Amino acid sequence: QNPIALIAGPCVIEDAERTLAIGRAIKAIADRLHIPYIFKASYDKANRSSYNSFRGPGLKEGLQILAHIKKELDVPVVSDIHCITQIEAAAEVLDILQIPAFLCRQTDLVYEAARSGKVINVKKGQFLAPLDMKNVIAKIEEAGNKNILLTERGATFGYNNLVADFRALPIMRSLGYPVVFDATHSVQLPGGAGTTSSGQREFVPYLTRAAVATGIDVLFMEVHDNPPEAKSDGPNMLYIDQVEALLQDVLAIDTIVRKHK
Amino acid sequence: QNPIALIAGPCVIEDAERTLAIGRAIKAIADRLHIPYIFKASYDKANRSSYNSFRGPGLKEGLQILAHIKKELDVPVVSDIHCITQIEAAAEVLDILQIPAFLCRQTDLVYEAARSGKVINVKKGQFLAPLDMKNVIAKIEEAGNKNILLTERGATFGYNNLVADFRALPIMRSLGYPVVFDATHSVQLPGGAGTTSSGQREFVPYLTRAAVATGIDVLFMEVHDNPPEAKSDGPNMLYIDQVEALLQDVLAIDTIVRKHK
Amino acid sequence: QNPIALIAGPCVIEDAERTLAIGRAIKAIADRLHIPYIFKASYDKANRSSYNSFRGPGLKEGLQILAHIKKELDVPVVSDIHCITQIEAAAEVLDILQIPAFLCRQTDLVYEAARSGKVINVKKGQFLAPLDMKNVIAKIEEAGNKNILLTERGATFGYNNLVADFRALPIMRSLGYPVVFDATHSVQLPGGAGTTSSGQREFVPYLTRAAVATGIDVLFMEVHDNPPEAKSDGPNMLYIDQVEALLQDVLAIDTIVRKHK
Amino acid sequence: QNPIALIAGPCVIEDAERTLAIGRAIKAIADRLHIPYIFKASYDKANRSSYNSFRGPGLKEGLQILAHIKKELDVPVVSDIHCITQIEAAAEVLDILQIPAFLCRQTDLVYEAARSGKVINVKKGQFLAPLDMKNVIAKIEEAGNKNILLTERGATFGYNNLVADFRALPIMRSLGYPVVFDATHSVQLPGGAGTTSSGQREFVPYLTRAAVATGIDVLFMEVHDNPPEAKSDGPNMLYIDQVEALLQDVLAIDTIVRKHK
Repeated sequence: QNPIALIAGPCVIEDAERTLAIGRAIKAIADRLHIPYIFKASYDKANRSSYNSFRGPGLKEGLQILAHIKKELDVPVVSDIHCITQIEAAAEVLDILQIPAFLCRQTDLVYEAARSGKVINVKKGQFLAPLDMKNVIAKIEEAGNKNILLTERGATFGYNNLVADFRALPIMRSLGYPVVFDATHSVQLPGGAGTTSSGQREFVPYLTRAAVATGIDVLFMEVHDNPPEAKSDGPNMLYIDQVEALLQDVLAIDTIVRKHK
Repeated sequence: QNPIALIAGPCVIEDAERTLAIGRAIKAIADRLHIPYIFKASYDKANRSSYNSFRGPGLKEGLQILAHIKKELDVPVVSDIHCITQIEAAAEVLDILQIPAFLCRQTDLVYEAARSGKVINVKKGQFLAPLDMKNVIAKIEEAGNKNILLTERGATFGYNNLVADFRALPIMRSLGYPVVFDATHSVQLPGGAGTTSSGQREFVPYLTRAAVATGIDVLFMEVHDNPPEAKSDGPNMLYIDQVEALLQDVLAIDTIVRKHK
Repeated sequence: QNPIALIAGPCVIEDAERTLAIGRAIKAIADRLHIPYIFKASYDKANRSSYNSFRGPGLKEGLQILAHIKKELDVPVVSDIHCITQIEAAAEVLDILQIPAFLCRQTDLVYEAARSGKVINVKKGQFLAPLDMKNVIAKIEEAGNKNILLTERGATFGYNNLVADFRALPIMRSLGYPVVFDATHSVQLPGGAGTTSSGQREFVPYLTRAAVATGIDVLFMEVHDNPPEAKSDGPNMLYIDQVEALLQDVLAIDTIVRKHK
Repeated sequence: QNPIALIAGPCVIEDAERTLAIGRAIKAIADRLHIPYIFKASYDKANRSSYNSFRGPGLKEGLQILAHIKKELDVPVVSDIHCITQIEAAAEVLDILQIPAFLCRQTDLVYEAARSGKVINVKKGQFLAPLDMKNVIAKIEEAGNKNILLTERGATFGYNNLVADFRALPIMRSLGYPVVFDATHSVQLPGGAGTTSSGQREFVPYLTRAAVATGIDVLFMEVHDNPPEAKSDGPNMLYIDQVEALLQDVLAIDTIVRKHK
């Protein structure tokens, strides 16, 4: 029955200063609202639609920037890993290792990440039934790790479209671990813009409130000071300016439904 | 920005007394909570999976029962129509004529129902994109009727399963008419029990709260004093005993999000 | 192990002469190839997206035109019915009564059509699992009719899209009745053009050959002399000029797979 | 307009002798039918549902076994890679490097595999629209490699189910590279058996014939001498005894449709 927490930040580290500034702005909002805040940004977008899309600063420089943000803002940080060779370095900086949705069934990645002892946030694959996350959990527990987060980020719904099935949230909570709703990836339109994914930012507030009303543990959202300018996931990221009002609704709804968690 | 209203009752009229008793119990709850209440029950289940399934008392007797309930409880009543030959009689008793989801594209049924001047509640077909409801609206407006409700009751998601896409609620609201969320049909598993549909009652509270949190106008739910005994839709109907606590959450959430409507 | 038969014709009766001319052209092809041919055209498109779309000549005039074509071409005719009030008149002219996909679960329509003793061709709803057609069959058999055809015409796949699941063909054949593949409706994009459905004619030959290769009994396709000019389903109808070459492939494939039927 | 080729073998290398024996049996069939044959087996199943499922002999021993089979049978061999660290060793033995469906958007894996100069067989992700494979192709071409195969292996269709959309085959062929139909993974039921995937072997012949009838370049199927005993994918693998009769149909159909390729 803990109050809801927030994972937020820009999709990818564009540069050190801007990334820190976005985190600082979110931190200020979270502080005002007394919401526990975890900073998120990717050091490498390893599965962009196109070869020539911006990927980020890479592991080494990216982790340095994340370590700096962690210290500056005094918040935990999460980022995604894509290969077992990244785990050791990532675990030195990150508080939460995130398994990307496409990779949620890669046994070695999940198991070795779990062996780091860090919190593991697994994004449910767009191709996976919610109950099948029990098998992913078992791989993590097999490594002796019970610090697990399970994230809903939309299920494949025909071509170039996702649907957030809100039955998935209580189903995953019934597996015994905190559940995260990723509000901004759930409105992606994969491949919807030909050589990049598109998205429907306009639905983020609706899906966010809906998810919170089911009773979730953590809200995940990607945020940017100017999404149309962003180098990844612009169409589905929220403007920083939208965040505080939305979180006020989130808190109010969370208070009502907390008894059901 | 009106407060949320409730359409509720048993799936089908099983007998006059039991149906009235269920309505009376719901009415008492709605009165305590100051929620506008519309009674719903079907006089004929015209699309049961099986030929031998119970269908109800039929048009004539069913409308008499509904007229009696309407008078006894002093509430508006809604029921579904399946054929243009039923419209005239139905419109004499019913306040709202409901177009079943499978029939939402039958031009004559929609148009002739609209010509009655009654409020028309169209359930969006499980096969229809939310935005395509604009074409259904146009058929109703063509008949000079602007008293329209649009209902989400789940979209086809593979076989024997539905998903409630909560983007559909703001999309349909953007078409200019009040939107209803049908919480109990959205958890049906069509054909899921071989010769009948099955359902997942356990998810009704989650989806109800979620839908209300997006900002809807009306909540629709089928309710029975003893669903396992019900002659239709037992697996997805709510117990009367569950209704009041759920509606308290509904009201609290609705108060928070009403400004977004 | 009968050779494959063909149901074909324009989507809707546009006018008597053009409709007959299309039938005559298809008949000539079918005769050359020794394929049993059944003429199809609708007298009323009862579920167009838009109120103002062309619907056809209606029941009375339409049946007269169909009767004329039946006599002129000396072929059986099939058309779809939408209401039990149409059955008596339709059964006087038509050899096969077709139940539209959206209406395949309307018990009265299916049962009363079956009572006519005519062959009943049921199109599987876009929202229905193939195995669930056993319940539709039971309704027809309940009326004492065992002259049944089961048609695949695509399943809902996200929004504004259908997918032809070729597992459905052997599943439906296992229910004991001949199976029809509707090649031109399977490539519809429902609502894909805003106020009308769109379609992907370019895939018709691929899906046709594929369906025949699974082992089907009847091929259904809508055909027009100039589809871009057609008043309904233009984007997915075949040109008459495409038909003969495609049917030659169909026959050759059917010969190979007939032993599996 | 080449005749169709065959990629086949057991899902995973269970032991050296059995794997060779299966390959030998398929080779004999392919030789009798004059079908070009490529042997396939995995050295590591890296994304099993469960941690404790059998994974195979691993990279080193697995490649030795594959090298032995390649020499003994005098056929090209294909296997899947999961990590860029495997590419160098794999490319020394394998003729075709296969990118698993879940990994088809991992830029580094695809690009580095392509840099090996080997033929790259990319399985289309269950979450990907067919046209979006153009972006995957661009990553491979960026590495200077134009030896590409594109494989259809089913698209996510609700939960625990896949559908083979046969429009995907001509769409992918239009991208300029040979297209493979994976007949045995297309009938998987992912997660359908709780802690493992299930499958529907009974539909493999239907989907195989259907795919060939659209006009494909390569047929992919997993085959075992005793599938119920197999350590992976038993429910969807074909019995060796089924292969020859099916390939005879395949060849006959391919002859008819080759002109459309």
